[in-house]
Amino acid sequence: MLQETPGGATDSLQQIPMTAETGYVVGADIGGTSLRLAIAGMDGKVVAKWKASTTGVRDPNVVVGLIDEGVESLFKQNFLPRSSLRAFAAGAPGVTDVDAGIVIATSYLMGWRDVPLRALLEARLGVPAAVENDVNTAAIAESKIGAAQGIRDFVFLAVGTGIGAGIVLNGKLFHGMDWSAGEIGYLLVPGTSVAPVETGEPGALESIVGGEGIKAQWQTAWNKDITDLSKDLVATEIFDHALNGDALAQTVLRKSAETLAYAIYNLAVVLNCPMFVLGGSVGMHPALWSTTRDILAQRDKRVQPKLLRSTLGPDAQVNGAIHLAIEAASSRVLSR
Amino acid sequence: MLQETPGGATDSLQQIPMTAETGYVVGADIGGTSLRLAIAGMDGKVVAKWKASTTGVRDPNVVVGLIDEGVESLFKQNFLPRSSLRAFAAGAPGVTDVDAGIVIATSYLMGWRDVPLRALLEARLGVPAAVENDVNTAAIAESKIGAAQGIRDFVFLAVGTGIGAGIVLNGKLFHGMDWSAGEIGYLLVPGTSVAPVETGEPGALESIVGGEGIKAQWQTAWNKDITDLSKDLVATEIFDHALNGDALAQTVLRKSAETLAYAIYNLAVVLNCPMFVLGGSVGMHPALWSTTRDILAQRDKRVQPKLLRSTLGPDAQVNGAIHLAIEAASSRVLSR
Repeated sequence: MLQETPGGATDSLQQIPMTAETGYVVGADIGGTSLRLAIAGMDGKVVAKWKASTTGVRDPNVVVGLIDEGVESLFKQNFLPRSSLRAFAAGAPGVTDVDAGIVIATSYLMGWRDVPLRALLEARLGVPAAVENDVNTAAIAESKIGAAQGIRDFVFLAVGTGIGAGIVLNGKLFHGMDWSAGEIGYLLVPGTSVAPVETGEPGALESIVGGEGIKAQWQTAWNKDITDLSKDLVATEIFDHALNGDALAQTVLRKSAETLAYAIYNLAVVLNCPMFVLGGSVGMHPALWSTTRDILAQRDKRVQPKLLRSTLGPDAQVNGAIHLAIEAASSRVLSR
Repeated sequence: MLQETPGGATDSLQQIPMTAETGYVVGADIGGTSLRLAIAGMDGKVVAKWKASTTGVRDPNVVVGLIDEGVESLFKQNFLPRSSLRAFAAGAPGVTDVDAGIVIATSYLMGWRDVPLRALLEARLGVPAAVENDVNTAAIAESKIGAAQGIRDFVFLAVGTGIGAGIVLNGKLFHGMDWSAGEIGYLLVPGTSVAPVETGEPGALESIVGGEGIKAQWQTAWNKDITDLSKDLVATEIFDHALNGDALAQTVLRKSAETLAYAIYNLAVVLNCPMFVLGGSVGMHPALWSTTRDILAQRDKRVQPKLLRSTLGPDAQVNGAIHLAIEAASSRVLSR
């Protein structure tokens, strides 16, 4: 059930008259706690944004209904005719078959299995739609308008609750044969557990580097005799305290950055990839970025991947979806 | 300097009359201890093989001269006119720019840097030539006529002195932007050293799983009170003794297989790759294969890559080179 304003809040950046010959697209980022939408012209320029809570919302049909409300709101509030919507695209938080338009599996938070999201969206919105994994939509955006503009080979690393990678090789997203390439939360590096991971459990890498893993590190190490800080801190707060000199927080930061650096090093070796872009709510923290970058720089001279911070932040996913929607407008014919 | 019969030994499998309209190709595997050649018809069927020692031979021009001798010998001994040679290809033990025909770097054993091998070969042999990394040529052969026939996504793992991977994605070799994808000797997994690796040193993974690394594990653990075996054993001998019940050898086998399994698991996760083929002189050992396979099977149900043994063994590299030569015959025009 929706716990915030069902209609969400329209954040109208500017009002632009409809361009009948070109029209508009809407991109979406479907997350476990929020749904973000943005309407843009066919040049990809964002006209307005919209956001609603998805806390407790799990049924795909309800999510699609909420998306429809958001689209309607964006058009109304910007005085645009809904008929000028040309296409729609969404980033979904899970393994997504882009060709079939199906979300194969999301984490336990959403619990989706084989959801025909594209068909649901096209039936509801009446325009061509595209779906993609949300980390991949963010990678697309970083490649088009963000930190990796014009770079043909790079990996976008999203560190939030967990960790995922969007791999761009030779200018194209690399999906893998079952659409699950880049699910790097499961990587085994020095310092991670080697115990087999049950389905639905966090992977070995994200148990240390993901937001939840960083919190768990803190709670395990926490002791009132060695720090004045609260036992209940989230990852970004722990990193803030590390920057402010708390020794325990610095230890957690160091361990997180080291583990992340090993994973990046491995990806650089296997993929022969020279550039990594760090994003996601935890990954955007400057302390994680700079510490990881310094650890990488102290490793082999032979393998020296560049580590950048995302320039788009929380807007990356929606911006990538906008790009996919523009593509869908010209390439997809509505099947109904 | 060449230390064995300069001309090498021709291993004539059968004698086939020349087919003027189609002709023959020769494939080569350039190694640090031996040079292997094979002549084949345009259907890829091997007519005869030739082998010579390269121990102490390092100068690329001397290697190319030795190749020329081998080609000459193969044609003479099989009563074929040299004019029926249509093309040549070689697998080289290092990072190879396939487009430019340049061996960028080999390990300290050969010490090559930016050797224009294709141009040297074409000048000497007078036919179109192709060059490729030797692990990649082996992967091509496994894909065409070996363990991975008809498989579009798999990784060939060559475990010899060191370890390398030939990555086939969507039916094509994945080279990476600087031709060094799959240099997995450097991977960091639980149990490997995290110390930075100097250029020319073996990587963290191969320090445990490569032939030299396995030997080093044995020598470190060896103690006359716990084993009757010699301190001077090579990897395959250690694995033989593990099969025969020596406890110390079993410990070394277990550690090697575990470390290899972690690397395979990581590759399966990053590349979303379901199949691995184990080859190379050490990798072909049945004990390493079966122990690694069992360890993988005990890990997550979600990530269960299939692990096969190479069916081509030491012939894989040359067979892949033959395939490349057949391609070169139809696609490359001699530039001179």
